[in-house]
Amino acid sequence: MLRNYKITVSYDGTRYNGWQKQKNTEATIQGKLEQILYRLSGRETAVHGAGRTDAGVHALGQTANFRLDTALSEAELLDYFNRYLPDDIAVLSLKPASERFHSRLSAVGKVYRYRIYTGNAKPVFDRKYMWQFPEELDAERMRQAARLLTGWHDFRSFCGNRRMKKTTVRRLDSIEISSLDGGRELALTFEGNGFLQNMVRILTGTLTECGTGMRNPEEMPQILAAEDRSRAGITAPALGLTLVEVKY
Amino acid sequence: MLRNYKITVSYDGTRYNGWQKQKNTEATIQGKLEQILYRLSGRETAVHGAGRTDAGVHALGQTANFRLDTALSEAELLDYFNRYLPDDIAVLSLKPASERFHSRLSAVGKVYRYRIYTGNAKPVFDRKYMWQFPEELDAERMRQAARLLTGWHDFRSFCGNRRMKKTTVRRLDSIEISSLDGGRELALTFEGNGFLQNMVRILTGTLTECGTGMRNPEEMPQILAAEDRSRAGITAPALGLTLVEVKY
Repeated sequence: MLRNYKITVSYDGTRYNGWQKQKNTEATIQGKLEQILYRLSGRETAVHGAGRTDAGVHALGQTANFRLDTALSEAELLDYFNRYLPDDIAVLSLKPASERFHSRLSAVGKVYRYRIYTGNAKPVFDRKYMWQFPEELDAERMRQAARLLTGWHDFRSFCGNRRMKKTTVRRLDSIEISSLDGGRELALTFEGNGFLQNMVRILTGTLTECGTGMRNPEEMPQILAAEDRSRAGITAPALGLTLVEVKY
Repeated sequence: MLRNYKITVSYDGTRYNGWQKQKNTEATIQGKLEQILYRLSGRETAVHGAGRTDAGVHALGQTANFRLDTALSEAELLDYFNRYLPDDIAVLSLKPASERFHSRLSAVGKVYRYRIYTGNAKPVFDRKYMWQFPEELDAERMRQAARLLTGWHDFRSFCGNRRMKKTTVRRLDSIEISSLDGGRELALTFEGNGFLQNMVRILTGTLTECGTGMRNPEEMPQILAAEDRSRAGITAPALGLTLVEVKY
């Protein structure tokens, strides 16, 4: 009997072309997970992820679901995944889910974190997980801008897909900006009901432009109102971004 | 005029054949630092490290010294190092030192940390910096053994160099064993006046054998007294070890 399983997945995205399976590369997270299920069952099994993380983006708690008919127990299935997955992808938990559960459609919220290195040295051990920012950032200016971006808005100006046909309205609940490691790191935590393609990276790029003084925090309402990608800031690099949690 | 400089260096040892320069490989930390000084000055300049870390061992605060005649200021010289070093090696600080200062001979103590992953999942982000241990470890048994290893002892049984001609007597001040990350990590911190080749890794291997129950903590005095490498436990893998600090 086919059963629906929910998994929580952690990965270091450095070596991968993102979550979503692609025809021209084996190096995607979805592709790796589906390979394991093919190895186990001999059937093609679709693994549906909650968020299609970009190439180079990491996850602490991505979720996904798939339907499988197996004699293995949950503990054995979890073990099977982790034995055959490369060491930069781990399945943290595996549970049976209701028949109607879909990792993306059932999600009610997501949490992303973006890490910026602002110290003077080089972050040797976290170099693959932080954007090394060359200038000083005024966190207070970034927080002013962040407050003007939260709430229900049309985030078309912060969407990397210029041909996006569906609604670009999302609820951004909060952007917390914390100074860590004695001021050497700035961590931006975004929570909302859903995020558009590149949205966290464009928000981060725009916030850093407020932080350097190049842009005024008070511009944010106008950028949102313009519904035009070219009005927002740069897309921050993928390596600093981590999908922390998917809420149900 | 030649001046003596002291530097503090951090590195991810994963890609390197250890600190010490070798004839058959470019991939050593000392080699990389000396290359930068050759590039700057056109002269071969020896960089003396405080500890000859093994292949794959990391450093948060290795120290070294070298003599150089340069018109660059200290800030410029620091910058020059970090611009040309690969991104897994960083010079954290650079200061002029007294003529008599030698990073190894002047050192009065060293701190090493060994990280063991004891969780059930795979440590995706720290996989290159932790020994993934397959069994449960009883930290209290390890602490009992650790207490019997501290003090002034002949550590010949814990020395990886079987032809060691010089004294193998060292003062091991403390071994702290901390449970971190909700019990998923065991961190062993070693402080002493100096460490023999592989000494921290053999101490760690022996302590884990006490932790699994395979070995009795009370054996420690006999192992020390035997002055025989074959009486101690295995050499723990290099990847879990980090040179944290050198004291002067």
